Amino acid sequence: MAEKLRICIVGSGNWGSTIAKIIGINAANFSNFEDRVTMYVYEEIINGKKLTEIINETHENVKYLPGHKLPPNIIAIPDVVEAAKDADILTFVVPHQFIKRICSALFGKIKPTAIGLSLIKGFDKKQGGGIELISHIISKQLHIPVSVLMGANLASEVANEMFCETTIGCKDKNMAPILKDLMETSYFKVVVVEDVDSVECCGALKNIVACGAGFIDGLGLGDNTKAAVMRLGLMEIIKFVNIFFPGGKKTTFFESCGVADLIATCYGGRNRKICEAFVKTGKKISELEKEMLNGQKLQGPFTAEEVNYMLKAKNMENRFPLFTTVHRICIGETMPMELIENLRNHPEYMNNDVNAPILQLLSPRCHL
Amino acid sequence: MAEKLRICIVGSGNWGSTIAKIIGINAANFSNFEDRVTMYVYEEIINGKKLTEIINETHENVKYLPGHKLPPNIIAIPDVVEAAKDADILTFVVPHQFIKRICSALFGKIKPTAIGLSLIKGFDKKQGGGIELISHIISKQLHIPVSVLMGANLASEVANEMFCETTIGCKDKNMAPILKDLMETSYFKVVVVEDVDSVECCGALKNIVACGAGFIDGLGLGDNTKAAVMRLGLMEIIKFVNIFFPGGKKTTFFESCGVADLIATCYGGRNRKICEAFVKTGKKISELEKEMLNGQKLQGPFTAEEVNYMLKAKNMENRFPLFTTVHRICIGETMPMELIENLRNHPEYMNNDVNAPILQLLSPRCHL
Repeated sequence: MAEKLRICIVGSGNWGSTIAKIIGINAANFSNFEDRVTMYVYEEIINGKKLTEIINETHENVKYLPGHKLPPNIIAIPDVVEAAKDADILTFVVPHQFIKRICSALFGKIKPTAIGLSLIKGFDKKQGGGIELISHIISKQLHIPVSVLMGANLASEVANEMFCETTIGCKDKNMAPILKDLMETSYFKVVVVEDVDSVECCGALKNIVACGAGFIDGLGLGDNTKAAVMRLGLMEIIKFVNIFFPGGKKTTFFESCGVADLIATCYGGRNRKICEAFVKTGKKISELEKEMLNGQKLQGPFTAEEVNYMLKAKNMENRFPLFTTVHRICIGETMPMELIENLRNHPEYMNNDVNAPILQLLSPRCHL
Repeated sequence: MAEKLRICIVGSGNWGSTIAKIIGINAANFSNFEDRVTMYVYEEIINGKKLTEIINETHENVKYLPGHKLPPNIIAIPDVVEAAKDADILTFVVPHQFIKRICSALFGKIKPTAIGLSLIKGFDKKQGGGIELISHIISKQLHIPVSVLMGANLASEVANEMFCETTIGCKDKNMAPILKDLMETSYFKVVVVEDVDSVECCGALKNIVACGAGFIDGLGLGDNTKAAVMRLGLMEIIKFVNIFFPGGKKTTFFESCGVADLIATCYGGRNRKICEAFVKTGKKISELEKEMLNGQKLQGPFTAEEVNYMLKAKNMENRFPLFTTVHRICIGETMPMELIENLRNHPEYMNNDVNAPILQLLSPRCHL
């Protein structure tokens, strides 16, 4: 019989601890996984006691997921190399700005046959400008294949075991069922697709659209307009992926990572919320980040900036009027109301045009 | 030069009058349309005066769209045959229960070269059970080709000229640009696709999904769950169209009639609202229709019932757990909470299964 697969969770924040609940139970239940799951925890002192010790004794991450018990087979370890060295599956779930440092620490110290699974939403900034997919960073730094998991997955709701779905992007047909077993529960349903880059792009680009949705909410423009902005945003996501990360399938955008995450984020997310406040208060995004997020950076404006860098470099800003205008609004270069003005002649409404609508490219429409 | 095209609007309710604002202006502005547009108005007496006279004198439909001026080239006519007899384009926008009677009156009295454009959302009941598309009814009764217009188009927001989009389904490549000219404005953007049946099905089936979204809201189940229900609803819409009205393109579901109308309806519509109240108050749908809609019938439960008739006849209820469960909840046969229970094993999460997920059929996924 094959050796049991060992799992390591690299990260232990709110989402990492939520996912540890799921992985711990599945690792214990499925015979092809080793029961013991290691979790890398950045050590902190909480009321005079180490966080790793608290987790290992009380099975609760009192700082990042208070009120929820972790399965007892989740073992918190403060040294990332120690946590990861024997793992066959490395699940990455840390803020994206830490990923390069962590991969540097792990390089050469993990199993050469290990595979990665990134739950990190958002892009990283490429040196010189533009975006880099987190899964690509991990893959390049550690020389391992990396799958991704994205979806309409607000952590607090998943922690409360409220029904939802997620999408795993995995190119390896042998690993796909294993990752599904590892992540799926009766309340967290998994669909696996092959289209890794599309899945990951959705997870980051939707935040730009959510900023647009927030502006619309701030302007009080109603349900039709918001639905139109969300749909045009989805079209720009599809077009962006088609140009910069080609080879995917358009059905991927019908999965949870696509349309469902977009909906959840444009109604429930914090990008929407802050961008609504931006319009209503007239304050800068950076001020609102300080007031409403304790100084944490919002993903949407950052992603819009890096995406704009890429579009500008290719002289493609006009083909992405929503992405472009959201960026310009965020940096104060244009007014929120301009978003609508710039959508009135969106390429999606054009025909016979060099800027052909993306759906036209994917499947011909009436030629007007 | 070809003769100018004459337009008739059959209907003058809230949506009909809203659309008359658009058609009147475009007919006057484009040289290929006759300026004068006739509008069939079911005669009523308002404060002792005929509604047609009020409209023709004040250019306001004081009963169904008060506060908005209609263009002066919109001419209200109380006799449907008189209104329609010279028209090249017949725009149908009446409640669906009147369409057969109106078509009977018009049969043999219209131009044989006329074409129809249906703005009527919802299905009609087939004799004996099941659904019939409104555009098919018109086409069969009048022996003319019929296009459709559907989208995220709450009438009050369109009347206020708030930015939105719509989708026209039109098989005739020569008519497509004409219909676009007739309907498009700077605030009402039109995309034309060939896929008439898919566009029309979206406009009716989304109401079943909106009932599901309302139950989720009533149960207080959060953003992830609602997004999942909406996405699974979209998958059932696609599958239903694929089985019962085949030949369409899946890109149609990315148009305004698809994903955008679904979003607007699941957040802003009355099916959502009443189904939320259904859960919270424990009252029957019929009671709530009386209390909240002045006795008007809700489209969602009716559509769910007729769709269920078709699914049952083909032994396919299990392949559409959302449509099926929404129907059972509406008729009091099962509890709202069962909706989630019945989605946990949705065909979309299955692989290796006779009930293959629709996206698998449309574009293969990882085979697990």
